[in-house]
Amino acid sequence: MQKLGLQTIQFTSPPSITETASIVGPKEADGPLASYFDKCLEDEFWGESSWEKAESKIIKETASLAIGKSKIPTDQIDFCFAGDLLNQCISSSFGLRDLTIPFFGVFGACSTFVEGIGIASVFLDGGAGKNALCCASSHFCSAEKQFRFPLELGNQRPQSSQWTVTGAGCAVLSKDGTGPFVTHFTPGRIVDMGIKDANNMGAAMAPAALDTLITHFKDTNRNPSYYDVILTGDLGYVGKEILIELSQKQGYNIKSNYNDCGVLIFDKEKQDTHSGGSGCACCGTVFSGFLFHELKTKKYKKILLIATGALTNSTTSQQGETIPGIAHAISIEL
Amino acid sequence: MQKLGLQTIQFTSPPSITETASIVGPKEADGPLASYFDKCLEDEFWGESSWEKAESKIIKETASLAIGKSKIPTDQIDFCFAGDLLNQCISSSFGLRDLTIPFFGVFGACSTFVEGIGIASVFLDGGAGKNALCCASSHFCSAEKQFRFPLELGNQRPQSSQWTVTGAGCAVLSKDGTGPFVTHFTPGRIVDMGIKDANNMGAAMAPAALDTLITHFKDTNRNPSYYDVILTGDLGYVGKEILIELSQKQGYNIKSNYNDCGVLIFDKEKQDTHSGGSGCACCGTVFSGFLFHELKTKKYKKILLIATGALTNSTTSQQGETIPGIAHAISIEL
Repeated sequence: MQKLGLQTIQFTSPPSITETASIVGPKEADGPLASYFDKCLEDEFWGESSWEKAESKIIKETASLAIGKSKIPTDQIDFCFAGDLLNQCISSSFGLRDLTIPFFGVFGACSTFVEGIGIASVFLDGGAGKNALCCASSHFCSAEKQFRFPLELGNQRPQSSQWTVTGAGCAVLSKDGTGPFVTHFTPGRIVDMGIKDANNMGAAMAPAALDTLITHFKDTNRNPSYYDVILTGDLGYVGKEILIELSQKQGYNIKSNYNDCGVLIFDKEKQDTHSGGSGCACCGTVFSGFLFHELKTKKYKKILLIATGALTNSTTSQQGETIPGIAHAISIEL
Repeated sequence: MQKLGLQTIQFTSPPSITETASIVGPKEADGPLASYFDKCLEDEFWGESSWEKAESKIIKETASLAIGKSKIPTDQIDFCFAGDLLNQCISSSFGLRDLTIPFFGVFGACSTFVEGIGIASVFLDGGAGKNALCCASSHFCSAEKQFRFPLELGNQRPQSSQWTVTGAGCAVLSKDGTGPFVTHFTPGRIVDMGIKDANNMGAAMAPAALDTLITHFKDTNRNPSYYDVILTGDLGYVGKEILIELSQKQGYNIKSNYNDCGVLIFDKEKQDTHSGGSGCACCGTVFSGFLFHELKTKKYKKILLIATGALTNSTTSQQGETIPGIAHAISIEL
């Protein structure tokens, strides 16, 4: 691999995304992408006694599905990179504790899925191993309980708020494989533009997405039209509009081939999800379900996936802090 | 790089640990290693209005010190790998948000410092960049508040409990440099032996340390006597004794050259720290302060650093879960 420009890593032997799997909750099962997911749950508990245990079960079963679909024996998977939104990433560590695969906890808030794939790609292209598993999960109920209010309160949500996706996305990457391939990885810097509204994560994260997007184009000498589609992780409707406008001001027109996973996963009119989906599983399930299918069927041949994360928590909000954002991008090409 | 045996990565051009820095709190300043740290604080707040903000300031200033000592311009540091114990790793993301270096959040609980150095070494040996910054922090007050009880309660602590180190350790790694060098990295698997006592983390983490230790020896065909010293991150007195005993049962005698950072950092008799130190900063500051000095002055020429982490939180404890452990090991040699 080599470094291109300021921040981008270009892989010499681009790792192959061999298989993916996705499991989602009941709300996502009512959305427009339902048919692309491997499994849709009928309720938020899946037989467990708490939302946290349910989220752990979801990531565990999704990992198991992805490994099974890849037909790679578990003992030939060299590393697992995983993370989630729960305090101390417990969904991943409890869900994946029986895997017996060397485990790396990663945390990039909702950008975790792509952070993991990016790091895994460096490991595989560098020769550290042959196969890696990348997982990320989130759960509407465990996230609301932890970051906002008890669900039982039935609080009203402002129009700029987003709906945390319940589910998990997992990808198996291989040094050898038939693609699609991770060709470039542009890890992001932390960008904090002073947004303090914890109910407007799209606005807080859009400047970080912009920073990574523009850096990626400059580093690779590519422009937006190079990609069949450019997808951000969970800017939602509010953040999507901001990113289009900010990109335009920097001389990049992304309007015709850009969308956001949080916009795609729910039906805005029918599902009352306001600004759209969010959470580690937003980008994780939309990629592992929908996008991977479109790549495999060659509808898309070149995509730029930019997962976005808000590096905040309830303590920092209560202490009057602003919300730092981050965005990690990977080019995936056939 | 290449994979050795089951889990170990052997670096082809071992990255150099070019510089380190450490800042600690007042309790650590009263301990036996005080003279090795770059800065000892007089109080737990350091002029900030909350313990969380103080912890962010500590990691920020430690990173700044490490970069300054390395004499590498910030814009030539390609990546930052950082994490901490606070929910959503806010100490790292808020403390390092002004760095403008591509940022990777990593979470391995108290094993985070070595997890970061291991990943950074893969990036540098693989050719993804030339320099990387690795940071980890913890803070006694923010950790007690978050994981256990309000400090104001003055709860009694059992003899098996450990004292979270207040401080941060940061290391600057370089592709080119004069060492000490990271020659091997053995990332750990999650090991859960069913310990449920949140006041006995040493016992919960010792089996994970054992798993990584034995795997490292088998993968590298080395035995304990190869190293001048073997150091675990924060098993404390309780976990240290368990690890010695478990290793003996597996045929490895580590008694003569093994110690634990949590045992070294406090004076057990005078400081009332029971089983010893813990936290991301335990291994982080003891390595960045004491061990790096011993390597630079050639007192130690070969060390094995095994950072240990308990992948738990207060929710999982309250829900009756056991405590999964993990341990990541790096060989550092002149």
